Amino acid sequence: MAQRDRPIGIFDSGIGGLTVVREIIKELPDEKIVYFGDTARLPYGNKSARTVIKFSLENVKLLLKFGVKFIIVACNTSSSLALPALRRRFKVPILGVIRPAVEKAVRITPAGRIGIIGTRATIGSSCYQREIRKIGPGCKSFAQACPLFVPLAEEGWTNDEVTLKVARRYLGPMRRKNIDTLILGCTHYPLLKKMIRKAVGARIKFVDSAKEAALEAKRMLTRDGLRRRRASGFPGYRFFVSDEPERFRKTGRRFLDKKIEFVEKV
Amino acid sequence: MAQRDRPIGIFDSGIGGLTVVREIIKELPDEKIVYFGDTARLPYGNKSARTVIKFSLENVKLLLKFGVKFIIVACNTSSSLALPALRRRFKVPILGVIRPAVEKAVRITPAGRIGIIGTRATIGSSCYQREIRKIGPGCKSFAQACPLFVPLAEEGWTNDEVTLKVARRYLGPMRRKNIDTLILGCTHYPLLKKMIRKAVGARIKFVDSAKEAALEAKRMLTRDGLRRRRASGFPGYRFFVSDEPERFRKTGRRFLDKKIEFVEKV
Repeated sequence: MAQRDRPIGIFDSGIGGLTVVREIIKELPDEKIVYFGDTARLPYGNKSARTVIKFSLENVKLLLKFGVKFIIVACNTSSSLALPALRRRFKVPILGVIRPAVEKAVRITPAGRIGIIGTRATIGSSCYQREIRKIGPGCKSFAQACPLFVPLAEEGWTNDEVTLKVARRYLGPMRRKNIDTLILGCTHYPLLKKMIRKAVGARIKFVDSAKEAALEAKRMLTRDGLRRRRASGFPGYRFFVSDEPERFRKTGRRFLDKKIEFVEKV
Repeated sequence: MAQRDRPIGIFDSGIGGLTVVREIIKELPDEKIVYFGDTARLPYGNKSARTVIKFSLENVKLLLKFGVKFIIVACNTSSSLALPALRRRFKVPILGVIRPAVEKAVRITPAGRIGIIGTRATIGSSCYQREIRKIGPGCKSFAQACPLFVPLAEEGWTNDEVTLKVARRYLGPMRRKNIDTLILGCTHYPLLKKMIRKAVGARIKFVDSAKEAALEAKRMLTRDGLRRRRASGFPGYRFFVSDEPERFRKTGRRFLDKKIEFVEKV
């Protein structure tokens, strides 16, 4: 098969990476996708760097079995902790979700005051903060871990006074620091956008890391002449998980905005 | 080494099982303990039965390497899903946390109206409900999954209005059903006792599954002549985890009510 006709590989610790799949389908509708959600070992957000790196290496190895031409690490935690190790080990181009989001934030911030929210591991790794210092050295960053956001999103309490209270607790200090831009540094967070918006106020610009990663993937594939041609037929999407497929199939709908027909277990 | 001088093995998906360790130290102060927390793969509460059984078999195999004489499955999810498989596979006596809690609840319930709270997997498995039908056929049971309780406990929001709001949301329907006894079917929940108490009212009797499991272990070891003799010297506790030890060591303190000196990674 021609290199450009091969699928794009995307992995995440679980279901959240489907928000990246959704954006890829929107931006690159002719591409084939192989998705792997490591549902047996999720979440990654509260595990150590060494463990997250080990899991990520295994995930890329799995995707390579499907002959992928390009890999997106949809998981913010993996992107923060494992990207250098993955790039040292594999030749395939690998894109994370951190840099594209930071580039966008630095481009749109009016006064250079950028907030970042994510899991404990993502925030603890300081990787967004480091990237902001590199790409936008004039900017100031403010970071906050929000460990309850993922379970709240998975409960489906996306438009709920409890979620609003939690969001106010987490985001109050940032708001008082007058941030003007907020990076949603976890694939689950776009589901809570409404409550996060209420908690930080209407003026603040949001950066969705899933969307920015999809746009960057498009740019890179175009530049390298690796985009699949429409003429090659219906693209096809394959979803793999490490735990039982059923719950992924059901909940996945909310993330993907589409029905998922088949999910396979590895 | 004489059989009775061997350690008790205890495993959990993570840190919560330390509440069982605490009770064992209280009830059986002369016993040696080997604890394993599967922190690299936690939580078990949102995984499938097949995955939880696979992980549990691996955990028991690990504990057997330390020559344990008796095993307590401190994890409610493992106890609900994996006990029969574990007992088929291994000869060592294995105690779960479900039956002791149900026996206690059936013994103390004034009007036979028993509530059960736990993770999605524990409640979904219906194992508490089945055990209540078997041991207390005259009782009625009311079950509620509380997926936000574990992350709230791990955030340390144990005395907090958000936690109270969440508890009221989860427990309101049970309260209206006039339960008189409530089984805390997850090792993390005793940390939230105060807010759970406020949400269900002062009259309701609590059953703590960790405490009841420790009392049952004591009874079984006494009956089988397997209790360690005080004369054999300081008992010694060993803690193992599958992810980095540091966070376990720190957070463990809250669960164990004691400082943990050494944690080893397997």
